[in-house]
Amino acid sequence: MTSLGETIGAIRPVEPGPMTEARAYQDRLTKPSGSLGVLEDVAVRLAGIAGTCPPPLPVPAALAIFAADHGVHAQGVSPWPQEVTAQMVANFTAGGAVANAFAAEVGASVTVVDVGVAADLAPAPRLLARKVAYGTADLSQGPAMTREQATAALTAGIEVARDLVDAGGRCLVTGDMGIANTTASAALICAFTGRPAAGVTGRGTGVDDTTYEHKIEIVRRGLRANGITEAAAVPAGPDEALRVLAAVGGLEHAAIAGFVLGAAAARVPVILDGVIAGAAALVAGALAPDAIGYCLAGHRSAEPGHAVALAHLGLDPLVDLRLRLGEGTGGLLAHPLVSAAARVMHEVATFDSAGVADKGE
Amino acid sequence: MTSLGETIGAIRPVEPGPMTEARAYQDRLTKPSGSLGVLEDVAVRLAGIAGTCPPPLPVPAALAIFAADHGVHAQGVSPWPQEVTAQMVANFTAGGAVANAFAAEVGASVTVVDVGVAADLAPAPRLLARKVAYGTADLSQGPAMTREQATAALTAGIEVARDLVDAGGRCLVTGDMGIANTTASAALICAFTGRPAAGVTGRGTGVDDTTYEHKIEIVRRGLRANGITEAAAVPAGPDEALRVLAAVGGLEHAAIAGFVLGAAAARVPVILDGVIAGAAALVAGALAPDAIGYCLAGHRSAEPGHAVALAHLGLDPLVDLRLRLGEGTGGLLAHPLVSAAARVMHEVATFDSAGVADKGE
Repeated sequence: MTSLGETIGAIRPVEPGPMTEARAYQDRLTKPSGSLGVLEDVAVRLAGIAGTCPPPLPVPAALAIFAADHGVHAQGVSPWPQEVTAQMVANFTAGGAVANAFAAEVGASVTVVDVGVAADLAPAPRLLARKVAYGTADLSQGPAMTREQATAALTAGIEVARDLVDAGGRCLVTGDMGIANTTASAALICAFTGRPAAGVTGRGTGVDDTTYEHKIEIVRRGLRANGITEAAAVPAGPDEALRVLAAVGGLEHAAIAGFVLGAAAARVPVILDGVIAGAAALVAGALAPDAIGYCLAGHRSAEPGHAVALAHLGLDPLVDLRLRLGEGTGGLLAHPLVSAAARVMHEVATFDSAGVADKGE
Repeated sequence: MTSLGETIGAIRPVEPGPMTEARAYQDRLTKPSGSLGVLEDVAVRLAGIAGTCPPPLPVPAALAIFAADHGVHAQGVSPWPQEVTAQMVANFTAGGAVANAFAAEVGASVTVVDVGVAADLAPAPRLLARKVAYGTADLSQGPAMTREQATAALTAGIEVARDLVDAGGRCLVTGDMGIANTTASAALICAFTGRPAAGVTGRGTGVDDTTYEHKIEIVRRGLRANGITEAAAVPAGPDEALRVLAAVGGLEHAAIAGFVLGAAAARVPVILDGVIAGAAALVAGALAPDAIGYCLAGHRSAEPGHAVALAHLGLDPLVDLRLRLGEGTGGLLAHPLVSAAARVMHEVATFDSAGVADKGE
């Protein structure tokens, strides 16, 4: 079950029965009803994802960092040289990046997936070679990918999700690396939410005012060059969604969308990182709406498009610390919160069992 | 060094030198400058607290749950019977509460301190008997505590902090249990911030509209009965701060204020939990302003007074999940974030060491 069509066909809605059971069980635990706020919703969602109450602990977590380059980098949308993508892949495999430190903090494994870095990478531990192309074409001039390339990257993401679950991962975390990928993210968010470019384009990892205005213009040019009307209707149906992904997305966006679909097909929760994951989840939701039920929003990044994407997906972020790094860092930080929410369902006494008086009502 | 005066005398401001060094070092790490948002500020603060850069990992954490009862419970400010305080203490020592589950999640020890439960408690593992009184007097009728009682509870908190640090704790977390303690918290926050009662009183663990209006009126009555003018000047100096604490506070508020002072004297970070800790930190800050530099705000609770207290203290909460449970639950959830912030300073490569190109500027 690794082809795109088979995977989409295998995705079922989260199960309402265990969710109802989880909601009722929360109210029997020795705490005021509703007092765990958002974490009660997380526990309920986990029960729906697993189809059992209490839900299994989402441990261990497995992070996959999908790395790729972007033809639109040539338009000057980022102050960073393109080579940084490959250099950061080496940093991830050597264990020296922030994502590695955060993964160690939360006990997550780290897998790095080359789906489109514009350089030949030497084999390294934790590195999977799944290169579809040496970066995308320039989305401001026409389609960034062919439909076949987008499908190949989607399939790579599906397979990585499957393999990480087979290896024992009980919670997947999305990660990304790709200089200029906030530009492609903005274009995807425009296309999939119908919002104007200026409202969803951010400063990425640090552009100045002039570059920022230019970046918005490049997003607009990319939409026009690919027959997408700004602030208009969103893609209707999976076929059009795949066309839009190929037109203005990145190879890592396609792979992360596949990773989300693979998690949903395996009935395992997937914690989304920041704006790149948010854009990819919009694609996944357009391909298979039920997949979004398996997603948890790890955090809200400083990129304005991220909040737009999360609102469109109906997801409430767990961490909100003005992070704007990517790599999966925001998703990793949310993992202990998700795990704590599940743990409550296993370890906390009920009013009856603990001999605690319930609120007199 | 366990008397109140000696402890206050031992508190030094956090050190600016290591903070400047930490800020500069963050910019050499392989991540865009500022991209870790609030966590960069946390790492800088930890360096100032420890007086070294990089700061030591704040591991392991040690939670102390201070439990006490409140005479104002007789005024009908809570739907819960007072016996729940003692019942929850038994739940904590048996390991069945949410605080226990969260402590297990983050690897924190749990110590329960009876500083004023209105019942005789049987000895139990993790339970420290430091009872100052069988609950406070009714703050709406006059002083809740004598000055001697408040000082004894402050001292208990100081000693618990000292003992947990001596036992190896490298990050303290505040916890509380006390039916009706959000009423005393609201009165303390009124008195120490000069804000009106209606703006800082919340619904605690679930009161209806009628009880809520009554609760605000009881807070006002407590201020009047103790010669504190609503929405007026805040206590001037440590002596008046101690008088106000004794007048409208709880024994657990006093103990938590002492716990904060003890952490600061030991140069160990202390993560504040919710509104009870926020009220107690206002007391600690009035007794020793430099103590606030050692505090990290674990979360922002759903209680309106908590945001007011944090703003007054100048603290930015790390977690914001609409929690309203207390026990230390919000503080515990913040611990992995604090630890992750420190870990970055130890484990992440610099641009130079990793051979990653810095942003071209």
